[in-house]
Amino acid sequence: MDFFNVVTIDKANEIIMNNFIDYKFEVEEINILNSPNRILAEDVISDIDVPEFNRSTVDGYSIIVEDSHGATASIPSMLRQIGEVAMGKKPENDIIRGQAIYTPTGGMLPTSASGVIMIENTELMDDQTLLIYKPISKGENIVFKGDDIKKGEVVLEKGRKIDAAAVGVLASLGISNVKVYKMPKFYIISTGDEIIDIGEELTLGKIRDINSYALYSMIEKIGCQVVGRKIVKDDYDLLRLEVENGLELADIVLLSGGSSVGTRDYTDKVIASFAGKGVLVHGLAIKPGKPTIVGEGNGKLIVGLPGHPVSSIIVFKAIVEEFIRQKLGKTEIQPQVKAITEYNFPSSPGKKTYHMVHLRQENGIYYATPNFGKSGMITLLSKSQGYIVIKEHEEGVNKGEERVVYLL
Amino acid sequence: MDFFNVVTIDKANEIIMNNFIDYKFEVEEINILNSPNRILAEDVISDIDVPEFNRSTVDGYSIIVEDSHGATASIPSMLRQIGEVAMGKKPENDIIRGQAIYTPTGGMLPTSASGVIMIENTELMDDQTLLIYKPISKGENIVFKGDDIKKGEVVLEKGRKIDAAAVGVLASLGISNVKVYKMPKFYIISTGDEIIDIGEELTLGKIRDINSYALYSMIEKIGCQVVGRKIVKDDYDLLRLEVENGLELADIVLLSGGSSVGTRDYTDKVIASFAGKGVLVHGLAIKPGKPTIVGEGNGKLIVGLPGHPVSSIIVFKAIVEEFIRQKLGKTEIQPQVKAITEYNFPSSPGKKTYHMVHLRQENGIYYATPNFGKSGMITLLSKSQGYIVIKEHEEGVNKGEERVVYLL
Repeated sequence: MDFFNVVTIDKANEIIMNNFIDYKFEVEEINILNSPNRILAEDVISDIDVPEFNRSTVDGYSIIVEDSHGATASIPSMLRQIGEVAMGKKPENDIIRGQAIYTPTGGMLPTSASGVIMIENTELMDDQTLLIYKPISKGENIVFKGDDIKKGEVVLEKGRKIDAAAVGVLASLGISNVKVYKMPKFYIISTGDEIIDIGEELTLGKIRDINSYALYSMIEKIGCQVVGRKIVKDDYDLLRLEVENGLELADIVLLSGGSSVGTRDYTDKVIASFAGKGVLVHGLAIKPGKPTIVGEGNGKLIVGLPGHPVSSIIVFKAIVEEFIRQKLGKTEIQPQVKAITEYNFPSSPGKKTYHMVHLRQENGIYYATPNFGKSGMITLLSKSQGYIVIKEHEEGVNKGEERVVYLL
Repeated sequence: MDFFNVVTIDKANEIIMNNFIDYKFEVEEINILNSPNRILAEDVISDIDVPEFNRSTVDGYSIIVEDSHGATASIPSMLRQIGEVAMGKKPENDIIRGQAIYTPTGGMLPTSASGVIMIENTELMDDQTLLIYKPISKGENIVFKGDDIKKGEVVLEKGRKIDAAAVGVLASLGISNVKVYKMPKFYIISTGDEIIDIGEELTLGKIRDINSYALYSMIEKIGCQVVGRKIVKDDYDLLRLEVENGLELADIVLLSGGSSVGTRDYTDKVIASFAGKGVLVHGLAIKPGKPTIVGEGNGKLIVGLPGHPVSSIIVFKAIVEEFIRQKLGKTEIQPQVKAITEYNFPSSPGKKTYHMVHLRQENGIYYATPNFGKSGMITLLSKSQGYIVIKEHEEGVNKGEERVVYLL
């Protein structure tokens, strides 16, 4: 197997999308309290106005605003207070010119009221006589019926990741169940004679399966689920059997590791052995992350990730997360900070380069130092807070430049 | 109750920390696969070296590097290939000067090897004769024993939020269970005669309980849990009873809403009615979010949040999240982007001002527009991607300035 026909990340994503244009994730209905971090599978359209009535945004008096015009501290307007609005109830009376009704924050306005004057700008002389010391304008201190959400409005769009604000919107509309995409299912297969699981005894020459644990965590973070996790020796038949299981149970099969030449060759053949288009991408023009294989088998996406932890996570983000995002979600802003670089960062001509960095903050400014860990180290990941991306055509980054650091 | 003695956010956090200096969150041991987003309750110290042996980072030949010195494409060095390292096994033989052993990526090096030459820079003439076309330096393409993690090293610090990299580190050490803080428990009480729950029929004058749903989602997002959620009418006895329940079951009791003057007065009295220091903070110098009450009852934190959804979320982040962070976690970088402001943003002298903004991206640059929704609207939150903070002494933000937008 060669990695000479490497393609860019953008090209790889395009190839994947073209080949999975008809792949659909299922939909389910869940309670809104379980919905955060899930993706909306349909537009949410309001069937009510929010609020359903004109509300006061302050504690004060509902009036007809013309009654306040010309009022000053020295020459106040005098109105007749005719009652009080109870919270959660309709006002008992409407008002006419010259009248005022006490209205608490959130209270419903009498039909004819055109403004609410804050209690601080009034004085109650006796039970009925109210002095007004300031003019107010039409609509002042009112949220009108439908101001927040209008009946028939699309309030949340299909593809939105549900956050606290979205849950709040759903609650305001009285929607307790919502249609979301089922969590995409992943099957993770770690390959290699040297890989042992966490509970096994470590003998010389072996290493523990790091990547599948890190991937497990990444998968859950983006609102997906792991339905199986297996370690397989360097053996074509064993690997094919596990991939077959994975294709049966999951939406996406991840092959992790396989740093030996043998496993890399198997991966190729295994992918090609299933019904479908076989290997679609064979090497990525990124650093690190070149030895990546992407294919299709039995209609499902199979991704062979590089063996080094950092490469594995970067390719997962660039390829797998992007696939999920394009199939289910709209653009989301990737958490980031801007930081001043404290060293020169080299680039690799023709490759998109990812540098892990350590961030420190001083006087509110972030500074980024490259993490000089060797390829293959897990601490290269755990001691970094984020990474800098250097594009294919760029010639590296100079010390002192301000760059975007994407947070891990 | 007055809000004249408002304090800054920093002062409020200091008062809270001083009064809860002895408050401890419990610790539990959980499987690392369930640990993402939880907070480490102890330092993790490695009891092994990672790797436990010198590993190759490439497919190539283990050699004694002096044998490669002087080698060029035209005058290669000639070595004797004496075998192959099997993945996951100890090499069967060591090497002496003049010898080489094939070593795949991740394979264990023979004891005397001081470098690995990449297969691309060699040529195998026959079974035993290896030509080397390039010199390599000492240690080249090797991860030495303990290079990644040293025995006795603190690899993850207490207070770290567990992410994919941390899970990877734990897996590499063979640690399958880890001590984390128990998820802090919250009890949410929504107050107000006008508040109805999501399933109830909406009659004129009522509004649905938005804030407790949004808070529920925020609480889970930061790795905490909600143990109870109640709606209470404007009644001192009912409110006190629920707060008592909350103090019994939870670490933190949140009072949400209570926009009417009556409820605000009750809150004060209710907090003071329990054993402890009573009301600690009475109004915050922020906009929005001023009408916030913080107190201590039966040794627990009680926070009365403002009624408007945006204010509620901002105070939650500034006060409650900060409390959890200071008690459990280390500094974490708040997700943010830098954006050019497209309007002037006013400030409120002497107050920290939070402006919700809508972000758009053009040619890789973010632009921020203030969300002009009225106070009290849930869409002011749901149509914003983040917020700009204007400090107490600042005079607003001018159109065209670059500012940090904190993501919601």
